[in-house]
Amino acid sequence: MAKQPLIPPIGKKIKLSDYDPGYAGGFKDKTEVEETLKKDLQRLDELQDILYAGGQYGLLVILQGMDTAGKDGLIRHVFKGVDPQGVEITSFKAPTPAELARDFLWRIHQRVPAKGMIGVFNRSHYEDVLVVRVHELVPKSVWKERYDHINRFEETLTEHGTIVLKFFLHISKNEQKERLEARRDDPAKQWKFNPGDLKEREYWDAYQEAYQDALSRCHTEKAPWHIVPANKKWYRNYIVTKTIIETLERLDLKYPAPPEGITQMVVPD
Amino acid sequence: MAKQPLIPPIGKKIKLSDYDPGYAGGFKDKTEVEETLKKDLQRLDELQDILYAGGQYGLLVILQGMDTAGKDGLIRHVFKGVDPQGVEITSFKAPTPAELARDFLWRIHQRVPAKGMIGVFNRSHYEDVLVVRVHELVPKSVWKERYDHINRFEETLTEHGTIVLKFFLHISKNEQKERLEARRDDPAKQWKFNPGDLKEREYWDAYQEAYQDALSRCHTEKAPWHIVPANKKWYRNYIVTKTIIETLERLDLKYPAPPEGITQMVVPD
Repeated sequence: MAKQPLIPPIGKKIKLSDYDPGYAGGFKDKTEVEETLKKDLQRLDELQDILYAGGQYGLLVILQGMDTAGKDGLIRHVFKGVDPQGVEITSFKAPTPAELARDFLWRIHQRVPAKGMIGVFNRSHYEDVLVVRVHELVPKSVWKERYDHINRFEETLTEHGTIVLKFFLHISKNEQKERLEARRDDPAKQWKFNPGDLKEREYWDAYQEAYQDALSRCHTEKAPWHIVPANKKWYRNYIVTKTIIETLERLDLKYPAPPEGITQMVVPD
Repeated sequence: MAKQPLIPPIGKKIKLSDYDPGYAGGFKDKTEVEETLKKDLQRLDELQDILYAGGQYGLLVILQGMDTAGKDGLIRHVFKGVDPQGVEITSFKAPTPAELARDFLWRIHQRVPAKGMIGVFNRSHYEDVLVVRVHELVPKSVWKERYDHINRFEETLTEHGTIVLKFFLHISKNEQKERLEARRDDPAKQWKFNPGDLKEREYWDAYQEAYQDALSRCHTEKAPWHIVPANKKWYRNYIVTKTIIETLERLDLKYPAPPEGITQMVVPD
């Protein structure tokens, strides 16, 4: 199996068909990454503690993907082991009237993580060039300007100490079918089954095209996209966790110095 | 050892000296609750999933206690095993000018959990009758009215589907001394050491009195206080987890019914 890049080359048009959603980095099955993943999750826990203590950087993790691509599952698996006080998840739904009355980045900006925090976006401002484009919720003249707005916005964030990590969870059309069927047939998951998702599935090709453009146009040195092969949940969790860890390692995080003269301080009775 | 109630009798003045911070429910040590706690944390994870799915109730957990009482540690231990997408932690710090320009409940109300969510307050509106009273940040005529405001506010919440669970993490003055010393002496914890905490410790008695009044005056049938013996961290985690579980069990939560005709729905290719 040829090695598949996680980050596509910058500056070239991305073709999603070049990326195999079933790719698993040469690993045969879950058992081959289990131990590493467990250690990585512990390491993530440690790194988050230093990130929080240092208060120097915020980490923004953006998750995008088709329905059933595994955004919820990823959040559950990767961030469950981290101190909940240091993580803020935002799940962006259809905008409210108050949100629609502002520019599309208004509600997004409010949820950017503070320094020291990890912020996770379950869907994001990218929906404004995805669902909005596919269903023509605004005219083309409006959404086509948004790629630039997004790039400028993300540049502002990265220049002010926010690390932006963007993950596209890439599944195949057939994998989505299997997951929808599993949801339909499992009594514990049926409440999640939304008949509207079946309708949405008919727009698969339009979504892939919209994704391709969004990924291509908003793929920058400072805030690149990661195309995560996501047919195999275990590989998805493994590679995203690794990427987050490597990103935090590169920051060379340190605990702040203790207050001066701390060892001489006496705690009164 | 006499059994110590977790919830004091409603309608009577609470005397904190009646409650032993070292109480551990008759358990000898950590090993006696470890297995139960582990199972309880799993059960909490399950219950949270149904709470989220049902979207009928919100759960608000309010944590108060002296410095080092273990609010952060409790959050870490109890909520780490729960889907991070279903939990929102708010740590209330000194109010900003914008917050001070409104009534004291303004910033609190904004952070009340949505239905389906667990919201955890690390400190809360109670600080407005605690630190504010001890340091006379507003005149007595102002803070003494706040007990009523708090009761009315919490009543509004409970009448609209928010379950309010209030925990006072009760430690002894000597336990605080030991914890501050541990923080001073452990290189991995020194960054958390705030010399201001030593100064604050001099107000111990004034804080205990303020707590006694706050607990007594805002101890209602619908939103009672739990006085958590917190000298032993393992017992603190054990009893708080148990209380949350029992509260959720009483709600008789159920997954919502699946959409009608779900089994006949065909997922198209």
